[in-house]
Amino acid sequence: MECLKFLAIIEKVILFHVPKRCESLKLGTLNFAANFAARMEKPTLPKGTRDFGPATMAKRSFILQNIRSVFQKYGFQPLETPAMENLSTLTGKYGDEGDQLLFKILNSGDFLKTLDDQTLASRDTRKIGGQVSEKGLRYDLTVPFARFVVMNRNEISFPFKRYQIQPVWRADRPQKGRYREFYQCDADVVGTDSLICETEIILMIREVFSKLGISDFTIKVNHRSILGGIAELIGAIENEAALFVAMDKLDKIGPEKVREELVARGFDNSRLDALFSILSVKGSTINKLAFLAAQFNTNDRGKKGLRDIQELLNLLARFGASDKNVEFDIALARGLSYYTGCIFEVKVNGVNIGSVGGGGRYDNLTTAFGDKENLSGVGFSFGVDRLYDVLEELEVFPKETLVSSTVLICHLDSACLSYGLGVLAKLRASGIASEIYPDNVKIKKQLDYANKKQVAFALVIGSEEMQSHNLALKNLTTGTQEQLTIEQIITRLQQG
Amino acid sequence: MECLKFLAIIEKVILFHVPKRCESLKLGTLNFAANFAARMEKPTLPKGTRDFGPATMAKRSFILQNIRSVFQKYGFQPLETPAMENLSTLTGKYGDEGDQLLFKILNSGDFLKTLDDQTLASRDTRKIGGQVSEKGLRYDLTVPFARFVVMNRNEISFPFKRYQIQPVWRADRPQKGRYREFYQCDADVVGTDSLICETEIILMIREVFSKLGISDFTIKVNHRSILGGIAELIGAIENEAALFVAMDKLDKIGPEKVREELVARGFDNSRLDALFSILSVKGSTINKLAFLAAQFNTNDRGKKGLRDIQELLNLLARFGASDKNVEFDIALARGLSYYTGCIFEVKVNGVNIGSVGGGGRYDNLTTAFGDKENLSGVGFSFGVDRLYDVLEELEVFPKETLVSSTVLICHLDSACLSYGLGVLAKLRASGIASEIYPDNVKIKKQLDYANKKQVAFALVIGSEEMQSHNLALKNLTTGTQEQLTIEQIITRLQQG
Repeated sequence: MECLKFLAIIEKVILFHVPKRCESLKLGTLNFAANFAARMEKPTLPKGTRDFGPATMAKRSFILQNIRSVFQKYGFQPLETPAMENLSTLTGKYGDEGDQLLFKILNSGDFLKTLDDQTLASRDTRKIGGQVSEKGLRYDLTVPFARFVVMNRNEISFPFKRYQIQPVWRADRPQKGRYREFYQCDADVVGTDSLICETEIILMIREVFSKLGISDFTIKVNHRSILGGIAELIGAIENEAALFVAMDKLDKIGPEKVREELVARGFDNSRLDALFSILSVKGSTINKLAFLAAQFNTNDRGKKGLRDIQELLNLLARFGASDKNVEFDIALARGLSYYTGCIFEVKVNGVNIGSVGGGGRYDNLTTAFGDKENLSGVGFSFGVDRLYDVLEELEVFPKETLVSSTVLICHLDSACLSYGLGVLAKLRASGIASEIYPDNVKIKKQLDYANKKQVAFALVIGSEEMQSHNLALKNLTTGTQEQLTIEQIITRLQQG
Repeated sequence: MECLKFLAIIEKVILFHVPKRCESLKLGTLNFAANFAARMEKPTLPKGTRDFGPATMAKRSFILQNIRSVFQKYGFQPLETPAMENLSTLTGKYGDEGDQLLFKILNSGDFLKTLDDQTLASRDTRKIGGQVSEKGLRYDLTVPFARFVVMNRNEISFPFKRYQIQPVWRADRPQKGRYREFYQCDADVVGTDSLICETEIILMIREVFSKLGISDFTIKVNHRSILGGIAELIGAIENEAALFVAMDKLDKIGPEKVREELVARGFDNSRLDALFSILSVKGSTINKLAFLAAQFNTNDRGKKGLRDIQELLNLLARFGASDKNVEFDIALARGLSYYTGCIFEVKVNGVNIGSVGGGGRYDNLTTAFGDKENLSGVGFSFGVDRLYDVLEELEVFPKETLVSSTVLICHLDSACLSYGLGVLAKLRASGIASEIYPDNVKIKKQLDYANKKQVAFALVIGSEEMQSHNLALKNLTTGTQEQLTIEQIITRLQQG
């Protein structure tokens, strides 16, 4: 801050006392001063990004490890793809809005070389952006997965079940709970249209939540063909996409605003009345299915969707599982346009945090990459950052997630420090995570360090301990202390 | 490829038959055709990047898990930083060459808005690049770590021991073994200048290599003050940086070429003779230390370096450890300019792969971010990709790294498939990773799937098995088969 004050003074001096004819000198000096200030001020993080220190990492690992173990138990195998993809892979897959939110990477070297003077002078950012950049950062994990499948079709044995846990980047306006870098945890199966996969997604979600200690949550389920059937019913097939995008906001903005949006998009009120009468049907899944079955009558598309949902429920029963937490929600639409079958979304009840995961079936994703044969796929994605916020709000993170040493060796002087190195070697040889305070400082400072780092035990070495080989093992949680030989200590700690 | 042929014909037709006055139509059509071709051709990966499929992921996890467990055993805690950093954080930290290799991210929205027409027309890529981009991708893990420490100084309890395992990106020319996206595994301690940290780095390296099954490797050690002392001896203090950069290439290009490079940089031959006579000293570490001690005489800087190396060896002994694999190498220089104390580099012998890790002490890294108080730090970084190549070449990867299901349930018809779902639920409830082939296909196809995925057991269900509840458990490695109840199978598999 002192720097900034100093610079403010310099700035005034320059602005008022350098004559007008020295304008370029003036600007140069101001630029230099600004750069200097930037260098001397504390560094910052780019907007919407975060560091994960040890405490946060521990909690995140708790979430990720649980998700990973469930994915593996269900036969999914890990995949990782590069952070950068060719823009030709990414663009056109997420709709116009998605394209706008891609982070683009400036070409290396002379990035202007393919631009002619005219284009450059036009300042057409879309055109120029397309030429100065040919790579972008991963926007989700599904499109890179589809790209991987197409590139490795001949080596993959289908059905291919993969999971992927990696960050994605979106140039969204950052706000509470929305970041520009965040993690997704995806599991997808491609190469089969069996509804067993959809059923297993529901089972996996329930198993993950059970491991995370969350019991009050809802898995909303719907089907794109049911949505299509509804669009057909109200005579809005040509305008389906707009209909679904608006319906997707029902939860957030309410029916009034959704109606307004649809009216603005040219839907007439009689159609919207029909729509909202369908959407307002309440009751059990069975009730809703029966209601829609009556409506759909000769509507094959809608009937196909109903059959799938019914089969999903049957399969759940075949697994010996209930339909607990599962809710058939006619209004669920999911924004991404590549879904073609069942769609899912998960919300934790009682917390004011949006959906913590979603997914669905897609039939045409690989054809976007020139694949001739359709490969049907279905997947689900957990949003780690939102899950983190949920667990924090519900206070269900276990206490002992922090990765830390079991023992800190403390010492009263340099001879004790030197003796401690041998003790340390023995602890580590027995697989006990341990460390020694590396400097000769007061014992209080050493214990403070242990406490802040949540080390479980301190092993204090003074001249007496060095002579008797009986070391003082202090439990830093309870405060109790025992005199033990190193062998006794190792046995004690290995027993847990 | 057919598309490309088709397009080549179109291109010829357009180029030769569209009249000159229709130039813009011609260009437009060619552009459209090229875009079309790009869309229909198989997608590709950006140069120098890779996908990691299940088999590769398994081997990489083997390396990473071992490194992680050693780091944790030595008291290091995990940190992760964002992929993107402000360019002001990154630039100027890696030398001019490093700055050139940074991947820059194009600003979102109207990235040209701060550029005046004159600058735009100048095509000055350095100047324009600085204005259209304010973020870059992480180039290593040390600078983001230093940035984190400065930003969180008041919350961190020092000495701070962190490890970080994340990808970094460099716009280097890709070649065998050199990628544009690769992983680093770093462990650093800041806030102490105790040589115990350097000693523990040597111990950690040896423990990691032992876990990886590599025994023939060399940890080269040197000290920047010894290099400084040598520079002083030969009268080259003003030109130290160039001297060290050249020395760093001794291994790769040999003494002749290094001499040529230094002559070209203005070093005279008498000085270089003195240099090479020092560098050519062979023998044990003790011998080399004694030789240099005699040379340094009143050279305090050099003597400080020798004292540190000697103390490092003493500390190793205090840990009860030998100096096996450790080699004091006077010629080791390490390119990065931020090192100030001990420096390390590790090479695996008998394979033609460069160093698989390196590190050293740095005293001024946080001051680059405006930190007033110097924080001394020391760290080491493992190069995962090179380690991978080494393990592959030495064929020391364990066989059973692949994450896969223990059981695949196969079925002879749809009734068996349906029955199998209940069996599957029981296996999973017992924590056994298992799956069912989700479609009704020939049994051979199901078993092929299991074999390709290296699933250990197949559980085949036919109508007989459904009636008797005695299921056929087939060991896919040995080919043996047993008829067992599901309870017996679970007991068998849980025993391993």
